[in-house]
Amino acid sequence: MSAAAPDALADGVLAGSRRALARAITLIESTLPDHRARASALLDRLLPHAGRATRLGISGVPGVGKSTFVEALGCRAIQDGRRVAVLAVDPSSPVAGGSILGDKTRMAGLARDAAAFVRPTPSGGALGGVARRTQETMILCEAAGYDLIVVETVGVGQSEVAVAGMVDLFLLLLAPGAGDELQGIKKGIVEMADIVVVNKADGDLLAAAQRAEADYRSALSLLRRTHPDWTVPVLALSSFDPAGIGRAWAEIAAFHRVMAGNGAIAARRARQARAWMWSEIGDGLMAHFRASPGVAEQLADLENRVESGLTAPATAARMLLDAFLDTARGRG
Amino acid sequence: MSAAAPDALADGVLAGSRRALARAITLIESTLPDHRARASALLDRLLPHAGRATRLGISGVPGVGKSTFVEALGCRAIQDGRRVAVLAVDPSSPVAGGSILGDKTRMAGLARDAAAFVRPTPSGGALGGVARRTQETMILCEAAGYDLIVVETVGVGQSEVAVAGMVDLFLLLLAPGAGDELQGIKKGIVEMADIVVVNKADGDLLAAAQRAEADYRSALSLLRRTHPDWTVPVLALSSFDPAGIGRAWAEIAAFHRVMAGNGAIAARRARQARAWMWSEIGDGLMAHFRASPGVAEQLADLENRVESGLTAPATAARMLLDAFLDTARGRG
Repeated sequence: MSAAAPDALADGVLAGSRRALARAITLIESTLPDHRARASALLDRLLPHAGRATRLGISGVPGVGKSTFVEALGCRAIQDGRRVAVLAVDPSSPVAGGSILGDKTRMAGLARDAAAFVRPTPSGGALGGVARRTQETMILCEAAGYDLIVVETVGVGQSEVAVAGMVDLFLLLLAPGAGDELQGIKKGIVEMADIVVVNKADGDLLAAAQRAEADYRSALSLLRRTHPDWTVPVLALSSFDPAGIGRAWAEIAAFHRVMAGNGAIAARRARQARAWMWSEIGDGLMAHFRASPGVAEQLADLENRVESGLTAPATAARMLLDAFLDTARGRG
Repeated sequence: MSAAAPDALADGVLAGSRRALARAITLIESTLPDHRARASALLDRLLPHAGRATRLGISGVPGVGKSTFVEALGCRAIQDGRRVAVLAVDPSSPVAGGSILGDKTRMAGLARDAAAFVRPTPSGGALGGVARRTQETMILCEAAGYDLIVVETVGVGQSEVAVAGMVDLFLLLLAPGAGDELQGIKKGIVEMADIVVVNKADGDLLAAAQRAEADYRSALSLLRRTHPDWTVPVLALSSFDPAGIGRAWAEIAAFHRVMAGNGAIAARRARQARAWMWSEIGDGLMAHFRASPGVAEQLADLENRVESGLTAPATAARMLLDAFLDTARGRG
């Protein structure tokens, strides 16, 4: 058995080897069919050893100081004896400006710590694929003994929804500014937040950050609560001030205490796992459909006819579904 | 052949019979498999006669005066010789307050006009189903000679996205108020608008409506344009003032002139039809999957295992996909 065989790799990950973890993540990220099968076996093996970490999602638009905040928070957690892994969901996008590539360099201090594992942003691709790889990487990191997994994303699109769908706690990082419309944040994102942090509350921006804190607190008080047991806190702080980072860390710990205690985190995870399964089923069905020779034969023509208004979308769909099922039955 | 056979019904619809149109819509809305097949044959027959109408989507939160606006606009269009059909997308929702049931009564004036057809809100159900029935009903109305189709929806969730996905022009109706956050409108909805109307610009609310008009105009000027040839107009008006309704109608006509001229409407419709086909394929695949005996046998158990963290979501998905394909191949 080669050194990269799932069993040896799994043992390495479970023993906490950073090298084994990095290689396991590379395997997970590969799109080669042979690698996918091995990645899948590896995940099945490691899953029973995962699930004990706090899964923390952090989102914020570019320029909000996300890397600095994540690094300071990670260092604070390590002081408390935690082992911290930092992952990123950053789907490549034609709209520039959102990339968090280069995190590893920017989080140099955290990355050097033996209790931290900072994974550079994977090479992009469609959001679904990036999100799946991140979820799988989270399992690997948990199996390797990391007990705080930070998944960060740029708050510019649907990636926050994907991140909120894989974490226990979603923290929204905002810059001092005049309301979310100016920060390009969709209102739905604020509604998903379990904790809101207004960053850069220092120097010239202190007063603006305090105003933003008050504004967001009053705006959030108008929203329906997601959980009866949790009021979303709004904190203005500076990532360079240990006291501020300490308050954020205390809120994270409080959220975990309350929501693990009342079963809300377990319920959230069950719902996330179920949604993930159905999303995999949907993707798998679509992949089989597109790969079906019976479908391939008619698809381009029918798609053209639908776009030109010559065939009703539902009729074309029915014809293609029939072709798919006929091929599957060996009658194609 | 019975009187309700697709061919007779199709002839009735094409002849502009309101009774035939109402019966055809009832057939479309039926979920009985036999009815679905007949509805499908009917649509295939009528599709070549559809597509010549202006498809106008109108969204606004409850209380914004949507019915009054739609009725006034419909009457204005009729003065111009148009034939107007009013449909609604109103998925039933556990969150109360969004229903636009009772439109027929509220739009009594328009509904009495021989040139108008006001369809009461269908009985609800999941958004996908409601949206599909509305898209199909739109084709029936166009085949019956209606050349302005108004699809309205309550601005409280995903239904605006569904409506924007089936119309040529999306008009957002707002009440005078302090920004979209207080109106419960998601920022993404404002971004989808081709025309923004601030309603109730009369009496005590006139000044507030004019302020809102200026605010929205300046907010919209910050957004990236969806079309290089179209600047989204913002109009404050009263639905009780014919001059205001006339301005809205003129903007709708201008949008249609510009966007039909540069091919943007044709491109939008092609994209919509293609998306509709893929959505039908996705739904169809999922329906076949859930109906597969091989899947049914294992689904409950695997879903439980996934929710409990005993089986990885991807592993369960793969097992269920294998069961589906085996059953389809007759090896189940």
